[in-house]
Parts: sequence; structure tokens; C-alpha cells
Amino acid sequence: MNRRFSGVLAPVITPFKQNLDLDSNQLAKHCQWLLSQQVGLAIFGTNSEANSLSVEEKIDLLDYLRDAGVDPTRMMPGTGSCALPDAIRLTAHAAKLGCGGTLMLPPFYYKGVSDDGLFAFFAEVIERVGNPDLQIYLYHIPLVSQVGIGIPLIERLLHRYPQTIAGIKDSSGDWATTAALNAQGWDDFRVFCGSEGFLLQNMLAGGAGCISATANVNPAAIHDLYANFQAVDAEQRQAALNEVRAIFQGMPMIPALKAATGHFGKHAEWQRVRPPIVPFSAAQTTKLMEKLSTIGFGMPGL
Amino acid sequence: MNRRFSGVLAPVITPFKQNLDLDSNQLAKHCQWLLSQQVGLAIFGTNSEANSLSVEEKIDLLDYLRDAGVDPTRMMPGTGSCALPDAIRLTAHAAKLGCGGTLMLPPFYYKGVSDDGLFAFFAEVIERVGNPDLQIYLYHIPLVSQVGIGIPLIERLLHRYPQTIAGIKDSSGDWATTAALNAQGWDDFRVFCGSEGFLLQNMLAGGAGCISATANVNPAAIHDLYANFQAVDAEQRQAALNEVRAIFQGMPMIPALKAATGHFGKHAEWQRVRPPIVPFSAAQTTKLMEKLSTIGFGMPGL
Repeated sequence: MNRRFSGVLAPVITPFKQNLDLDSNQLAKHCQWLLSQQVGLAIFGTNSEANSLSVEEKIDLLDYLRDAGVDPTRMMPGTGSCALPDAIRLTAHAAKLGCGGTLMLPPFYYKGVSDDGLFAFFAEVIERVGNPDLQIYLYHIPLVSQVGIGIPLIERLLHRYPQTIAGIKDSSGDWATTAALNAQGWDDFRVFCGSEGFLLQNMLAGGAGCISATANVNPAAIHDLYANFQAVDAEQRQAALNEVRAIFQGMPMIPALKAATGHFGKHAEWQRVRPPIVPFSAAQTTKLMEKLSTIGFGMPGL
Repeated sequence: MNRRFSGVLAPVITPFKQNLDLDSNQLAKHCQWLLSQQVGLAIFGTNSEANSLSVEEKIDLLDYLRDAGVDPTRMMPGTGSCALPDAIRLTAHAAKLGCGGTLMLPPFYYKGVSDDGLFAFFAEVIERVGNPDLQIYLYHIPLVSQVGIGIPLIERLLHRYPQTIAGIKDSSGDWATTAALNAQGWDDFRVFCGSEGFLLQNMLAGGAGCISATANVNPAAIHDLYANFQAVDAEQRQAALNEVRAIFQGMPMIPALKAATGHFGKHAEWQRVRPPIVPFSAAQTTKLMEKLSTIGFGMPGL
């Protein structure tokens, strides 16, 4: 069980070429930089534009990263999908590659689905992947997926698959939900908050860390609070993280992350997104950079 | 332009084998029966569990149906997807096969996306498919997709792609929305309501017909109102349709359609669904059949 994740992970942003094909090489570089900052790789997350990539693209990317020397045990790829065969195929591939875990959205097209249906979906994935090393972290992000993962469903899954259901990313944005998850006392169940804004609270409540979009741009400082949450200045560190977070959260998150990474990494091609996401205009980028410069923000070593 | 659709289409329900693989042969039979009832084939719709199928499965099914002699010009497959490469691949295949049109959901994972982003998505699909025969019907189903298609977006698309943007399926469930679409007076733009409950109103307002889940089970009667909407007894016909519709709408739609088709077609395997949808229990099926028998409902010729 000690191979379960803890700490800080980034839903790694995904770079595109001019024709909107994936820029795998640039992604591998960003992954290596994040690892150098002690941050794990939740590739294929919401802020990775994962749902704008095909299953084939994701499988090819996993293989590319492995071949490029990115450590699979530090990867927690998003493998959820609306379609059962897609979820099975991608999850099986990630497990076979030795990924430390997978982060699974529930199937999110049909709304108002029952816990029976969601349980059956996850059960089919687990049974058909049939890999004892598979570690699934559930992904609760109800404001986006509109299909949530509640405590009764988690209990049913843990009861049937205690070796496989490893934790949750709670992106509800609601501390009471994260607190309730921590309060369950499930054996070695890892609770990650979906924003570093709750990181100190989550660590004090017994949580495992956070998986946060802004860990793409502010990884070292977020990891620093994770590693020192019992330090006397923990609240000041949290306040400093919040200051950065507030700037990004006040703008469309994906293009903001890409604009900052493009600026500090001197690689303007980072700005590209796939529709339906819209890239930043020059004016939006300028505005973001002005705000970041007022707090002396940078991305050293990028 | 006269090849655009009008009339009644069914989002064709999708049969599964015991292992949840597709039962292509059974699907072809249901398609042929629907065609014999004058109803067109909106395969891969919401009630087809299309979002529970992989792109590969959908491409294989299209090929299978064509090889089985199902007329592609009577097919309007759903080809929308969250991921641009998936939407392009499936739309291109449908157009190449000679499908009469495609019904396109907007990308539905990211919420609160702008019309600029949705326009860019549809534009990329149209440009990259690059087939002058492509006919796209937009699919507005905001209660499920949570991403809607409004009149300003349609206007932009029609302005740029007047030969390609052929119409809309309005599953808002809100007559005012359907009425507003008809009132635009766009040249040869086909407005389909998403339920036969609005069929008479839609025809009187200049609409093209309906694309409705219950056309899977009550096709002939729905087509009959379409063909006779100016008859003196049109309101009685509408009332009779509503009576059937109300029974199905009072239950989870997909398993109810499959239970009825399984019962009247003497093929219990129809009951199967893919998770997260849940199949009917024996008690639910019995209840449905009791209700249908009180109004003397049947599926003749199935």
C-alpha cells in the first residue's frame, strides 16, 4: 500500500503544434521540470484539456513520456471517459505501463444517473482491466462533470475493491466535502483537494496533498507548504500561495496557465489551446503578466 | 438543397450482447423496421447510448449497416464529441459513406465555454472534413449536454457555412426556443423538435419534423401526424401520441424503450444497457407493459 500517492500533483497542461497536433516533446520537458520541483504528474486532467484529446492520442502520449524517461510511478493519468470501452482501454494501458495510479472521472454525458449505474461502470473497468497493480483515484468535480461521486458510492467501491480504490481528488471547491471525506477514516484512502487553497486545511485534517491546476506554474512553493504544513509559518506560506492562485483563478484558467508558461519558458507556442477553449489575446496575456509582476512571481528553472 | 431531411427520425436504440459488445445484426434489423415505418435513422443519439460507444465502434457500426443494405441517405448519425479529433474522424467517415447528414453535439465537457470556442470547434470540423456533401444538423440538448447552441452561434455558422449547416434538433423541451428557431426564416434551415409532443406545433410553425426517442417504439403513428398535420383530426392524432409519450417519459427513457422493444419484438436481450445506464428490473418491465396495455399499445410488424 505504501506505493500510493501523496504530495502535490499538477494536471499537466498540454502543448499543441500550429496544426493543433500534440507537441509531445514539449510536454515531456514540462513534465521533467515539474518533477524537478517535487510535483507529480496528473496528466490528462481537466486543465490538461484531456477531454479534447482522443484515446489514441493519450495512449501515444503515455508511451512517448515513458520512452522519454519520465518515471511512470510519478504519473496519475486521467483515464475516465463517457464510454466504457474507452475507459477500459486507457486505464489498462496506464496500469500496464506502471503508472502509479489513474484519476478517473465518472462517465459524464448522462445526467441524473444512479449510484448503481456508476458502481457498475467502475466495477466493469476494474474487472476488465484485471490488473492487481491498478490504483484508481476517483475524480469528483461536479461543477464541470455534473456527475458527482458521493460517499455512499465510494463506500461500495471500497468494500468490493479495497486494493484498487486508492483515493479521491475532490474538486468540489467545498471544504465541507473534503473534510467529510477525511473524516471517514477509510484505511489508507488518499484525499487530495483540488486546489492548493485548501492544502493546509487538508493536511491538518489528515489529507494526502493536492492536485491543483496552478501547480503547473507555482509547483515548488506549493510543495513547500505540503512538506512543511506543521511549520510555524505554515499559514503565511498558505497566504502566499493564495495570492498567486487568486490571480489565475480570476481569469480563464487553461489559457492563463499556458500564457504564463509560455512567457516564463520563452516558448510562445504554449499559448495554443484546442477549441472549445479559447487562447488568450495579447491584451489578456499582458494583463496577467502585469498582475504577476506586482507580486514578483516567476517560474525559476523553466 | 432538396436532399435535406424532413419528417420523423428515431435516435435508434442500440442492442448489446451479453458481454456488452454491440449486436450489430440486431441493430440492422431494428433500422430496417424503422425505415419500413417511414422513420429515418438518427443513430448515435442520446437515447442510442451513443456516448457509451467508442469512436471505433461507431465507425464499425456505420460500415456494418451500409453493408447490411441500410440506406445511408436515411441516416443522420450523431458525430459530436468532446475531442476535436474524434468529431472530425467520425464526421468524415459518415460523410464519406454518404450519410444524409450528421447530428452534432457541441463539445460538452468544459462548461461555460464561449460562442467563439464553439464556433472554432465546428469550423475546424467542417474545414478538416472538407467534404462538400457534409450536412450538419446541430444538436441542442442543454439539460443533458449542459452546453447549448444559441441563435447567435447558429447565425455565425450559417453565415460562414451556408451549404453545410442544415438544421437543428431542439431538445430544449421549451416550445419558445423551437418557435424562435422557426421564426428566424433562415434559408432551408430544418428545425426538428426533440419530442413528438411538439410535432403539430412545429409543423404549423414551419418546422421540418421531429427526432424523438419514442419514434423507436411508436414510429408509424408519429409519421402519420407528420404527414397529415393539416388534417382535421390532427389534434386528436397529437393527443394519441402524447398518451404513449407520457408513459415512456414517466420512466427512465432508455431502459423503457428497450424493455418495450424486447417485449414486442420477442427478443429479451434488448433489455441490456451499458453502465452508467441501468436496465429495467422485471417489476419495472411489468409495470411498463401494464400501462401500455391499458391504451392498447403495440409495435406491429416488429
